[in-house]
Amino acid sequence: MTDAGAHEARYRAAAIDLLAVLAYGELSAFQRLAADSAMAPTIDDAAALAAMASAEHRHFTRLRDRLVELGADPEEAIRPFVDAIDGFHLHTAPSDWLESLVKAYVGDGIGTDFYREIAVVLQPADRALVTDVCEDLGQSAFVVTTVREAIAADPAVAGRLALWGRRLVGEALSQAQRVAAERDALTEFLVSSGDTTSIDLAEIARMFNRLTENHTRRMQSLGLAS
Amino acid sequence: MTDAGAHEARYRAAAIDLLAVLAYGELSAFQRLAADSAMAPTIDDAAALAAMASAEHRHFTRLRDRLVELGADPEEAIRPFVDAIDGFHLHTAPSDWLESLVKAYVGDGIGTDFYREIAVVLQPADRALVTDVCEDLGQSAFVVTTVREAIAADPAVAGRLALWGRRLVGEALSQAQRVAAERDALTEFLVSSGDTTSIDLAEIARMFNRLTENHTRRMQSLGLAS
Repeated sequence: MTDAGAHEARYRAAAIDLLAVLAYGELSAFQRLAADSAMAPTIDDAAALAAMASAEHRHFTRLRDRLVELGADPEEAIRPFVDAIDGFHLHTAPSDWLESLVKAYVGDGIGTDFYREIAVVLQPADRALVTDVCEDLGQSAFVVTTVREAIAADPAVAGRLALWGRRLVGEALSQAQRVAAERDALTEFLVSSGDTTSIDLAEIARMFNRLTENHTRRMQSLGLAS
Repeated sequence: MTDAGAHEARYRAAAIDLLAVLAYGELSAFQRLAADSAMAPTIDDAAALAAMASAEHRHFTRLRDRLVELGADPEEAIRPFVDAIDGFHLHTAPSDWLESLVKAYVGDGIGTDFYREIAVVLQPADRALVTDVCEDLGQSAFVVTTVREAIAADPAVAGRLALWGRRLVGEALSQAQRVAAERDALTEFLVSSGDTTSIDLAEIARMFNRLTENHTRRMQSLGLAS
């Protein structure tokens, strides 16, 4: 295999990994948000969460179609990431409506920030696809309003939700580390693919700073200590 | 109020009831199917159930929009039906993937048959909307294939699923009776609206026959005794 051919093969493997983990993330988010919408206090609230869930399902479909275009079997491509993402949801099952809203905003927020960050290693069309499916689905406005109102009505809620936000980040990081440890090829491609778009270690440190800053900003916008 | 005005007001109240119960049925079906898709053995199976769920969400949105057009508050219009539909799902929570498939096909089937039957009292545009959102979403082909394969692999499954199918119908009938008893105006409009489209008691008997026949046919297509 030529050098260019080897690089192309490594790119394809890394792109499939990235799109696959994101695809399963979207499918799981769809399942959880849809189920959580049954906890909504009103039909309007349920409809708002259900609309977010449906958007996640459309994202999943686009990512799965792209995996097929790349010649991957979505089933096989996704399998390595199922335990990590299922584990995240198993450890962060919301116990009420407000926890499900904070999860939809803070949990999905740190996830989509992360995917957008690492999408810089992808070629333009795939990068655009990732950016697109990671766009805010209107969670911000709806969740921020509802959570702030709940805290205004009962300030004690803020302490519990702040703890919940920290737990979401802790679980997300722990599962991300698990994926990084298990998917050597992906991690290696990200940090040392050798072309101009690869992420070096200093950039990884800056990336974690940005993720933390954005997370803090989201918690603040909810009126929660991070 | 003129006779025509009184009839129009009764029509509007009955149409809002019908569209509202169907809207909440679709929203609930969306929530349950999406959650059930997490029990799927493969990503392809999960994707198939998720696609059905998303279609139910689109139906919910169309029905809610029509309620708003009719000048109804969807929240208020839907409230009277929440307990009955939540009760149905509470008593028919699938314990595994096959039960969720049979519910998606047999349970939704008898529901959509019923809505289509009573939609004959609606004016053409509303009747078309109901017929449209009650269309088969591809459940038949997918569910029939999967359930028949499961029975071929383990014939003992058939007995358990046949019992499950009977329970689904029993719960659906019991909740439908509850709605009929509580919504006098709707029931009365259906059976005695006095115009050519009302349903007389003989017709109701024939309707129940048709519902039973269709149910039996669906159970048979799955390879199950009804």
